[in-house]
Amino acid sequence: MKTLEDLHILIEHEIDQQEKTLEPKELYEPIWYTLRNGGKRLRPVLVLMGCHIFNNEVTAALKPALGIEMFHNFTLLHDDIMDKAFLRRNQPTVHIKWDINRAILSGDALAIQANVYIASVNPKILPDVLGVFNKTALEVCEGQQYDLNFEIRDEVSEDEYMKMISLKTAVLIAGSLKIGALIGNASKEQADRLYSFGHDMGMAFQLQDDYLDSFGNPETFGKKIGGDILTNKKTLLLIKAREFADKASIKKLNKWYSTKKGNDDKKIREVVEIFKKFNVDHYLRKQVYDFSQKALKTLDQIDVSEEYKSELVNFTKQLIDRVS
Amino acid sequence: MKTLEDLHILIEHEIDQQEKTLEPKELYEPIWYTLRNGGKRLRPVLVLMGCHIFNNEVTAALKPALGIEMFHNFTLLHDDIMDKAFLRRNQPTVHIKWDINRAILSGDALAIQANVYIASVNPKILPDVLGVFNKTALEVCEGQQYDLNFEIRDEVSEDEYMKMISLKTAVLIAGSLKIGALIGNASKEQADRLYSFGHDMGMAFQLQDDYLDSFGNPETFGKKIGGDILTNKKTLLLIKAREFADKASIKKLNKWYSTKKGNDDKKIREVVEIFKKFNVDHYLRKQVYDFSQKALKTLDQIDVSEEYKSELVNFTKQLIDRVS
Repeated sequence: MKTLEDLHILIEHEIDQQEKTLEPKELYEPIWYTLRNGGKRLRPVLVLMGCHIFNNEVTAALKPALGIEMFHNFTLLHDDIMDKAFLRRNQPTVHIKWDINRAILSGDALAIQANVYIASVNPKILPDVLGVFNKTALEVCEGQQYDLNFEIRDEVSEDEYMKMISLKTAVLIAGSLKIGALIGNASKEQADRLYSFGHDMGMAFQLQDDYLDSFGNPETFGKKIGGDILTNKKTLLLIKAREFADKASIKKLNKWYSTKKGNDDKKIREVVEIFKKFNVDHYLRKQVYDFSQKALKTLDQIDVSEEYKSELVNFTKQLIDRVS
Repeated sequence: MKTLEDLHILIEHEIDQQEKTLEPKELYEPIWYTLRNGGKRLRPVLVLMGCHIFNNEVTAALKPALGIEMFHNFTLLHDDIMDKAFLRRNQPTVHIKWDINRAILSGDALAIQANVYIASVNPKILPDVLGVFNKTALEVCEGQQYDLNFEIRDEVSEDEYMKMISLKTAVLIAGSLKIGALIGNASKEQADRLYSFGHDMGMAFQLQDDYLDSFGNPETFGKKIGGDILTNKKTLLLIKAREFADKASIKKLNKWYSTKKGNDDKKIREVVEIFKKFNVDHYLRKQVYDFSQKALKTLDQIDVSEEYKSELVNFTKQLIDRVS
């Protein structure tokens, strides 16, 4: 039985094996820069684990897993242009280190390389795998568009926000597990269940991310606390705060969220104070817990030995305690 | 027997059938705007013709053909951002009509839709079709990167230029025909020959485009004459002019090509005069002719009835006379 950590090592090894000197270097340098820059490798590890729980041997899932990591990194590369982000994992983003053209074009090439790796699966399951992958890829774009739309809207409902994070984050986590399951020769029904588990786990994962952005420990979180607040992101914290808070607090929130100027530290402090005062932090923790529980219930219905499921169970249980 | 014109009508019909109201509209509107904006539809028509010459029935090639048109339009959408182009087929480009973010993201979504349509081929040939498509797609990105690289270089050799247009233009024309041939159940050998024909025909096509940009009739060309000259593009015309011209003319060329400022009409007039004086126009016409002849020779070796090949023969012969 392989642990998530074992699978992580396999992924890093597979990435290290990549050809590093393709031409033209102006196109491939930013790709290599992005891929080697680490990150959790959550999605490719889940492709491998999705395979592993149905089939001990994961070699056939390695290239498709790398394809998923490439696709994820392609979306980050383009999202960072759209979000005008300067840093990604503490390194300058591609459009800052080089320029926007390089970021657009090397992102495109990375997406195509992802297709190449996904297409390396056994021809027998290729149509099904592409069905999941292409549908998921399009949904991720839709999620990013909703996210951009919300930036210039005053009000976003809870349902709209949940749909956005489902598309932008949860479906790729779900799709990664399902693709792994298909490679591991799971039945369609079992693969769908694993997708459903992954979707709820992905929702919990994203909501915990939102929680940590306001309430995390700066020393363990790895990012500056309050990033979502400073960029006026309409996260579930804000949406529920506007619902739960008193008039004076809502007025204060609206004032802070109507501009990106002003005293950053004061803004973060005052907004987080309101979140806490009206228990929005508890509401969010409850959501993370509920989605985790729902995910675990689905996982329980998947017909493989408990031992093989245990890594996914532990990972899901620890989501609520994760600090980075 | 269907003519290229018949196949063009099938493609337009297939495009009209597309769902026009997908959500979020911010993502899908620019896609629909781009697809409906016409153009020659050369590549999808060639997918259908590649199929048709081996198999009378082309229905199975319709969706993949649309996929190729979508991929082509995705590259135009992103290239227009990189080239800072304001107009495409006399309409504002997507990044001008909306903004850069919309152009990046709807381009990404269009590329993924292209994958969906390409993946609709018979599962038996899916791995081969994806092999051609993904390789070609990556090469098109490489070609665009070389094109961007050449913009900031002083000197580009003839070989480098030919490699760039091969990657940026010829391989997609070749790949379109080969994908069509695979769908039409051609043997691998016959499909490779059609690819080779398409590549040389594509080279002739692009070089004729370069020729028309300087020597076309403004009334029939459809674009402003001299666009490549004003943007200091290092086309084969400039490369050969620098080789053939006398010192004084080279000095004049270098002066004009060292800036984008100054009198546009005078620049075009003086540069075209030098091209003519040193017979660079004839050199280019000869290249177009040679590539066309090479293409026709390859087509001759493809084992299907003359009648079915005649449309491709005529199209290739007319390349040298085309005015738009």
